[in-house]
Formats: sequence, structure tokens, C-alpha cells
Amino acid sequence: MFITFEGIEGCGKSTQITLLADALQQAGQRVLLTREPGGCPIANQIRSVLLDAANTALVPMAELMLYAAARAQHLAEVIRPTLSDGAIVLCDRFSDATRAYQSFGRGLDRQTIETLNDLACNGISPDLTLLLDCPVEVGLGRARQRIESTSGPREERFELESLAFHQRVRDGYLQLAAEEPDRFVTVDATGQPDQVARAISDALLPRLVVPA
Amino acid sequence: MFITFEGIEGCGKSTQITLLADALQQAGQRVLLTREPGGCPIANQIRSVLLDAANTALVPMAELMLYAAARAQHLAEVIRPTLSDGAIVLCDRFSDATRAYQSFGRGLDRQTIETLNDLACNGISPDLTLLLDCPVEVGLGRARQRIESTSGPREERFELESLAFHQRVRDGYLQLAAEEPDRFVTVDATGQPDQVARAISDALLPRLVVPA
Ligand SMILES: Nc1ncnc2c1ncn2[C@@H]1O[C@H](COP(=O)(O)OP(=O)(O)OP(=O)(O)O)[C@@H](O)[C@H]1O
Ligand SMILES: Nc1ncnc2c1ncn2[C@@H]1O[C@H](COP(=O)(O)OP(=O)(O)OP(=O)(O)O)[C@@H](O)[C@H]1O
Ligand SMILES: [Mg+2]
Ligand SMILES: [Mg+2]
Repeated sequence: MFITFEGIEGCGKSTQITLLADALQQAGQRVLLTREPGGCPIANQIRSVLLDAANTALVPMAELMLYAAARAQHLAEVIRPTLSDGAIVLCDRFSDATRAYQSFGRGLDRQTIETLNDLACNGISPDLTLLLDCPVEVGLGRARQRIESTSGPREERFELESLAFHQRVRDGYLQLAAEEPDRFVTVDATGQPDQVARAISDALLPRLVVPA
Repeated sequence: MFITFEGIEGCGKSTQITLLADALQQAGQRVLLTREPGGCPIANQIRSVLLDAANTALVPMAELMLYAAARAQHLAEVIRPTLSDGAIVLCDRFSDATRAYQSFGRGLDRQTIETLNDLACNGISPDLTLLLDCPVEVGLGRARQRIESTSGPREERFELESLAFHQRVRDGYLQLAAEEPDRFVTVDATGQPDQVARAISDALLPRLVVPA
């Protein structure tokens, strides 16, 4: 089973995916927790190019292709073999982030994005996508606090975008969820972490039943 | 005018493009000499990922997308503005290298490559492509000598490929030249550098006449 976590900056993806991975592991499941862009050494090298706040010159088409390249590598090297092996893969951001940020956010046409996603994914798509939804002010407020309280590389190229950009991304995510109601579950991410975690378990449980 | 130099490793592209840039500049032309992958800071970051001999895990689709990303950035940031400005752009490798290496060499299907090249180039294509042709043994022999005699980052991921791979690349280049005889000029690159340079000037002169 392949589960992806999506939503704007600071909505709580990394927090919730870790809680879910722990819960599944305690329930005896084999789980791989991974993230995009990244998840393997080559994709992490691409991640540094993508998230470096100094790369203000990066044009939307090159950005899109870098995400697609990182995804193709991550899928071939990590996700596909792990799924074949029968483990659950939890991925922090995936194709829907490209749709939300590069199409709804940057305005690249959707067909170009689907073409690149299809080439990168080569037939694999998430079984379930958890959209953690909250107002832009809430998410960016949380993300900003985190940035100020952590050291390490400053991966804040997107935090520097305008509020209107993030609003388009949030609205884009909600539209994507409406387009594919069977794959998406939208979770209210404004509550406390344990409340959000409970909403996620509730969404997941009926889907985790082992086939007879 | 947009002129690209193509051919296998060690055929003499970098040697000849420098000679031509000097000659054109001495004739009073404004010339930009650039190369792919690279040509601007972001594309150079992508170049390091592509040519790092440690990245043996890089899958063909991710590789193709990284070349396309570097090209989109290089075109938008450097080539297109320079052409608009009326200068001659000389580029060491371009789209045909992707066709020759990723399609003929690696076996990716040609349609996928054309799709990515089209997205990256967004309507720009070389006015003239100089294919420096020589047997694989000659080119690789020259390239190996150069590697042994220079320091700096080891960008030899392709030098490590098999002879059969490079043979497919050479044959691929010759097929591309046959597909587009108006754009390509194939030059015998086995001679001494000054002989090759003369063949290149001969090919170029009739095309450089300033329109009335
Ligand atoms: N439900 C919550 N209520 C309050 N704060 C939260 C909640 N969930 C997470 N946080 C905090 O908000 C910050 C952002 O959370 P997290 O890193 O999980 O978000 P994210 O969606 O992964 O963000 P990004 O897209 O930037 O990676 C962290 O400091 C985290 O501890
Ligand atoms: N015509 C020639 N005869 C002999 N040696 C040559 C000739 N042209 C170039 N060389 C030498 O061969 C080596 C490779 O040449 P060059 O770097 O120009 O090739 P290249 O096509 O740019 O290779 P690469 O694809 O690896 O960048 C260099 O050491 C160069 O000095
Ligand atoms: Mg996160
Ligand atoms: Mg060279």
C-alpha cells in the first residue's frame, strides 16, 4: 500500500507521517517512511538544487523537470522495490504537490505536468492520499516558527513565496481532492496534533483491512 | 545565429569551438561560447549530478529529465536572451546529444526524448549543427589522455561506458545528421586540429553571409 501526505507548508505532514509510521510499526506492519523531493542520494542532490533559497533564477519548466527527475529516481530506486516487497510506503509529498505548486501555484499548464508525472511514475500511483488542510496563515505561521527554531540548511525557497501563491496552492489541493474523491481523504489540520492523528487513523482503518 | 557542436567524447568539440569563437571574435563578431549540460549556475549544479562518476544508480528516465531541466534553464537564462541581443551563440553539445546518448545509447524511446526536448527548447533550435565525426577508438583515446593529464572534478560517468555504447552514440549521431541534412554538417574529426578547423570554417562561411 502506497500512502502519500499532501498539503501546504506547515500543515503538519512531517509530524503526522511520523506518528502514523510509529503506529503502524507498533501494529507489526513493515513501513517505509520517505519524502519528496528526496528519498535517495541522487534525489537528495536534486532536492538541494530545488530548495536552495539562492536559486531565485530557477524557471518554472526547469523546476518542474527537476521534480520529475527526482521522482523517477526515487520511484525506481526506493518506492517500487519496497512496494513489491509488500511493505507499506508512506511518502511526505508526491505527484499532487507538483500539480498544486507547479500548476495551480506557478501557472504551468496541467497537461505538461501530467505528461511529466506520467513519465516519472511509470504506472505507479498512490492508493490513498491524505490532504492535511488548513488556512494558509495557520500553516505558514507554524512553518515560520519551525524555521526560526532549527539550524541546518535553509530550505525555504517556497516559504519566501507570496501569500497569494500559497492560497492558490491550498485551493489547488482542494480541487485535486474533489477530482479524485476515491483516492483523497481531506483531513482538517487546524486542531491539535493528536486530534489530526485521530482523524487520519479513522480515515485509514477501513482501508487497511487485509484482503481475505 | 545559434550553432551547436556535437560528437562523441574526445572528438574535439571543446578544442574546435574555442578556435571558432576566437576566429569569429577576431572578425568582429559578438560571440557567446557556452556548453551543455551547464552554461549557468543552476544548470552547472545539475551538471554535477549528471557527470558525477559516483552516481551509478542514476536511472535513464531521471537522467533524461535532468538534461532537459538543465537545458530549459540554460535556454531561458542565457541562450535566448543572447540570441535576441543579436550575438552568435556557440554551444558545446545540445539537444542532439540527448538524442544520441539517451535514445541511441541508452535505448529510451525517441518520442519521449522529443517530448522533453520540445518542452525544454520551447521553439528554439540550432541554425547549424557541426557533427565532429571520428571512430570511437580515436575519440575515447584522446579523452582518456586528457583525463589522465588534468586535475579537477572527475566528470567521467560517460567515459566509463562500454565501447558498444559509444559506438551506438556515434552511429546515432550519423543517423541524426542524415535525418536533417540542412541543419547538420558532418566534419571528419580524425585529422589534425588545424585541418578540422579549416573544414569547419569552410562549412560555416557560406552560412555567415549577412542578409541584405
Ligand atoms: N496540529 C498542529 N498544531 C500546532 N502545531 C503543529 C501541528 N502539527 C505540526 N505542528 C508544528 O508546526 C510546524 C510544522 O509542522 P510540520 O513540519 O509537520 O509541517 P509540514 O507540513 O511537514 O511542513 P513543510 O511542508 O514545510 O515540510 C512544526 O514545528 C510542528 O511541530
Ligand atoms: N584533431 C585532434 N587531434 C588530436 N588530438 C586532439 C584533436 N582535437 C582535440 N584533441 C585532443 O583530444 C582531447 C579531447 O579533445 P576535446 O576536449 O576538444 O574533445 P571533446 O569532444 O570536447 O571531448 P568531451 O566530449 O569529453 O568534452 C584533448 O586533449 C585535445 O587536446
Ligand atoms: Mg515537512
Ligand atoms: Mg569537451
